[in-house]
Amino acid sequence: MVITLYDLAGAEDSIRFSPHCWRVRMALRHKGLDFEAIPWRFTEKDVIAFSGQGAVPVLVDGQRTVVDSWEIARYLDAAYPDSPSLLGGEQGTAHALFIKLWCEQTLHPLVLRMILFDIFAALHEKDIDYFRRTREARLGMTLEQAVLPPEQGLPQLAQVLSVPRAVLAVQPYLGGISPSFADYLLLGVFMWARTVSPIRLLQADDPMYAWRERLLDAFDGYARKARRIHDSYPE
Amino acid sequence: MVITLYDLAGAEDSIRFSPHCWRVRMALRHKGLDFEAIPWRFTEKDVIAFSGQGAVPVLVDGQRTVVDSWEIARYLDAAYPDSPSLLGGEQGTAHALFIKLWCEQTLHPLVLRMILFDIFAALHEKDIDYFRRTREARLGMTLEQAVLPPEQGLPQLAQVLSVPRAVLAVQPYLGGISPSFADYLLLGVFMWARTVSPIRLLQADDPMYAWRERLLDAFDGYARKARRIHDSYPE
Repeated sequence: MVITLYDLAGAEDSIRFSPHCWRVRMALRHKGLDFEAIPWRFTEKDVIAFSGQGAVPVLVDGQRTVVDSWEIARYLDAAYPDSPSLLGGEQGTAHALFIKLWCEQTLHPLVLRMILFDIFAALHEKDIDYFRRTREARLGMTLEQAVLPPEQGLPQLAQVLSVPRAVLAVQPYLGGISPSFADYLLLGVFMWARTVSPIRLLQADDPMYAWRERLLDAFDGYARKARRIHDSYPE
Repeated sequence: MVITLYDLAGAEDSIRFSPHCWRVRMALRHKGLDFEAIPWRFTEKDVIAFSGQGAVPVLVDGQRTVVDSWEIARYLDAAYPDSPSLLGGEQGTAHALFIKLWCEQTLHPLVLRMILFDIFAALHEKDIDYFRRTREARLGMTLEQAVLPPEQGLPQLAQVLSVPRAVLAVQPYLGGISPSFADYLLLGVFMWARTVSPIRLLQADDPMYAWRERLLDAFDGYARKARRIHDSYPE
């Protein structure tokens, strides 16, 4: 039976930009599992009401429904132990939680503010009011106040990325000699920007650029093939 | 044969404050290995010249000499695979490297500036000139310029610790349900301060305080028994 992933989509079905859903998409490819990624919008709460909550990713695998990208990764390692590990057992998983929370506390809020209006412009029209209302409540300010111009955001980003950059100076992936879910946690942020924004978050001489290139090429170029709104813009 | 650890000491042999050496001390206890921790001072380069470099920790296990706390942890997992894992295999180790570099980039420089003169006061007299010269070169300023008063340092520390604090809200240790080398990476910083400084880095209502208490109690209270210069000061 094919796995179903409810996956955030934009104005068109082919625009898939959620960093949390990208984590799961890469995790499913890592596990070599086929899946159908059903386009879903923020306001389609009824469609995923069966999951007991109102956000994607939602994964349905036979009789099992799993929500939250972290729980999905843990589920996939437990349910498919014979395919390559995503998290690396008990200690690998525990250590990856640090990387997850680091991503969410330091990187997500910064990149969100840098690509805020690119996301806004990519939304399905039925999500526009919802996005503004929920994000302004979360940010505690208007979208117009929160947005960060590249000349302010990029230097902050360079500083925030100093820890993963130092890791990648020692080993090719956060997961070591091959990618792990830790890499997909970080890649999710870059796919978020890549799919909707023309901004160049990384310069070609950055070791993180080469890391991202390797992940874009992984699984027959799966992430590289993703629809980009600004795909005429050079990388 | 008993393992030998060359371990940074202060004015008295019993003062052992190096965060990097504390990582190794805890790692050796974790592995259930007996060891002799030989007091060493910064300027005793000749004593460890056999190791090919000039800093501790240096571990000698039979015919093997291993330097650098991270390499020592990897060595112990490889050489003693039947005792509890420190790093958790390939992915666990790869993910822990992120935590190591995060500690060294964000936490070490901050705490160093908070306890700078407490360390200085704890040094053996033959290390005093060396410490000032090397640290001022590294900091790019005098010790007097670098020192950070608690009213400035503590709010910064609270912010820096938000990532491990969030991890410890989910699981009792950075290593999961039991400590791993990731915990000792972080504990090393707290032992550095605990052994030489009267400063209270954590308040009792902080989840990290309870985490540190558990680690102080581990291995029959090994870390708690460490000599404290200011041991009359309440915790």
